[in-house]
Amino acid sequence: MMLGMSETASKAGQVWAHVGQAFVDPGYDVIVAGAGRMGAACALYLRQLAPDLRTLLLDEGGLPNEDGATILAPGIWTGMDLPAAWQAEALWVRTQVATVFGDAGFDERTLLELHAQEMDGTVQTSSLQARFPTLSTLVQMEGLPFARLDPQAATYRPGAVALACAQQAIRQGADLMLNARATLVPGGVQVERLTVTNTHQIITHETHVLSAPRVIIALGAGGPYAAEHDLGVHTAHARAYRQVPRLNVSSDSASPVLRASGLTLRPQAGGYTLVPPIHHRDPHGYVPQGGHLTGVPTGLRRETLEDLVALMDLLPVLGTGALELGRSISDVPGAWLVLPGGSPGGRPQHQALPGGAHLLLGGPLADVLGLSTAYDLAASMAGVQTRPWN
Amino acid sequence: MMLGMSETASKAGQVWAHVGQAFVDPGYDVIVAGAGRMGAACALYLRQLAPDLRTLLLDEGGLPNEDGATILAPGIWTGMDLPAAWQAEALWVRTQVATVFGDAGFDERTLLELHAQEMDGTVQTSSLQARFPTLSTLVQMEGLPFARLDPQAATYRPGAVALACAQQAIRQGADLMLNARATLVPGGVQVERLTVTNTHQIITHETHVLSAPRVIIALGAGGPYAAEHDLGVHTAHARAYRQVPRLNVSSDSASPVLRASGLTLRPQAGGYTLVPPIHHRDPHGYVPQGGHLTGVPTGLRRETLEDLVALMDLLPVLGTGALELGRSISDVPGAWLVLPGGSPGGRPQHQALPGGAHLLLGGPLADVLGLSTAYDLAASMAGVQTRPWN
Repeated sequence: MMLGMSETASKAGQVWAHVGQAFVDPGYDVIVAGAGRMGAACALYLRQLAPDLRTLLLDEGGLPNEDGATILAPGIWTGMDLPAAWQAEALWVRTQVATVFGDAGFDERTLLELHAQEMDGTVQTSSLQARFPTLSTLVQMEGLPFARLDPQAATYRPGAVALACAQQAIRQGADLMLNARATLVPGGVQVERLTVTNTHQIITHETHVLSAPRVIIALGAGGPYAAEHDLGVHTAHARAYRQVPRLNVSSDSASPVLRASGLTLRPQAGGYTLVPPIHHRDPHGYVPQGGHLTGVPTGLRRETLEDLVALMDLLPVLGTGALELGRSISDVPGAWLVLPGGSPGGRPQHQALPGGAHLLLGGPLADVLGLSTAYDLAASMAGVQTRPWN
Repeated sequence: MMLGMSETASKAGQVWAHVGQAFVDPGYDVIVAGAGRMGAACALYLRQLAPDLRTLLLDEGGLPNEDGATILAPGIWTGMDLPAAWQAEALWVRTQVATVFGDAGFDERTLLELHAQEMDGTVQTSSLQARFPTLSTLVQMEGLPFARLDPQAATYRPGAVALACAQQAIRQGADLMLNARATLVPGGVQVERLTVTNTHQIITHETHVLSAPRVIIALGAGGPYAAEHDLGVHTAHARAYRQVPRLNVSSDSASPVLRASGLTLRPQAGGYTLVPPIHHRDPHGYVPQGGHLTGVPTGLRRETLEDLVALMDLLPVLGTGALELGRSISDVPGAWLVLPGGSPGGRPQHQALPGGAHLLLGGPLADVLGLSTAYDLAASMAGVQTRPWN
């Protein structure tokens, strides 16, 4: 499989970025709704594995979509705690990110999981201080004296991967339409081309109903809802709203990723992004909202706040002004994540629905197994039996 | 300890049911906010163990409060799966319910927990058909061929227990004020006496600030919120909204309680009440709302609906019109339950807060360990070391 610039310009696909560009349906074989990392990767692999299938990639926003989960995904690759059966697949994803998407910010970066108790494979946290001098500024090492290391871990920018996938897919012949809201209809997609008025309202400029024998629903947390609402298919998937607050403590390229009690501290842009654990789904109809800390409103949701408060003794920096709690929900970056199978541990998956539609879901493990799952769906549509990680 | 009618009428407490009855604070030693089963029982045990403490029991509504969790509690006593350390305590609760609160609808009733796999102590479900003829009308027995029995199980009406506790507490000298909303203040309680206008608005008729060295917060799921909001105390407790839909399949006094995959079918009033499992807390700010079943709105929340849909093969009756799904949330009885310690498995507990306040929490295990926990708090306030179950 070859990626990159080897295609000739004459084969490149068309891009409709705004409603000023007239659109006439040329007839597609596959429509991919959603140009996040799952949809964009699937479109790219479809071009490579099934170049005869005319492919259209759609997104309601721009590239990358600023309201999506991809742009806020932590971008942490680790094989630690992954079942043995998925290790080869995860390593293939690691190689893809490291070598194929050159501008994805791929950094090899040790992951340290800190523990109060000794476990198989742990070392003394204090023995790591010389190697990772930032450790003592973040961690109360007496309370977390043991650490497991993943020396193979790496960080990258999922938003950059999605963008690179979409760009390569276009160069290899896929069409792309942005600012295009997809509603599933039997046997295709209804597309509303959106535009912004001079009073900042988003309105529908025109609507097209596109038939396609195959529709890939890569709408993230909105995918199962669309399957149910538009197609009447009941699924067992769920979603959770995850906020990723900023911690203003300096980090550099040698800083490890830290994890304790499920909370991950991801070095990013000279500081840290906190990635809280997802304990379980949020209920249908939940509207994310801020919490209170001793009477003061915060932008962090209550449940996340409780997780952080419980960790303040072990990570004293969480109790300082370095943590950006915000004052209202809009102050703290957050996004809905799909939970494949309804569980926070559910791996990325695709699911055939009646009528030629396929759900493609990333979720909490998309950093590690997302690209391969998108590949797997493209390969199965192309009738390709082999997988490069097997 | 003696309960019942042995007290003389002259010692009975006073009741303020409506704002027409003038109230002058006589000075209380203990104020119990909330006359659900936990608060009412604690008031009663306080009269018995610490008769010198002048005690006031408050409730925002009537007796029993129709918006509270007590009146919808399943009232199922079972020692199955209870840790050994709690068995004696649970048996004491069973004896209390069976013998002390004569009108609480106590019925010995076998509990059958149905399983797809054989386990320690299971018997063949089919072998129980002769003894429990209703079984085959509810259960697809080939799918759930194994059953564990709790022959000691019993059902009762928690609302009737709460009412009996409050009545006995009054006869033994506790005062009671209804339609009285409690707000915690340092060193006491602010009480708003509520009345209903002729346009059906609830308004505050008058407000009293009552000092008391001891305040017991028995406000169910609202207790931790009151502790935090009124007193600024952060707690780790949580809550979940549980709906208990009706299943119109006939039952009688010989019908067992059935349980499968965490769902309980409780024979009640000639039919069944479904008691769905609580998987985890609901997030802060969640507003309960109905779901959809293949496009049709239901009063059952989405998460509960999914649990029932997953069980329809094994309990085919759930797929019939016998299940009252409702059309909007108000059609299905439901209430907020406190989750002590934040977990659905958290047992009833009391917790001392700064300034003489005590949280008293029931929650999902209150049917089995609620009365004893209320007793334990009353005994500790009375300086009594022994517990009748030890």
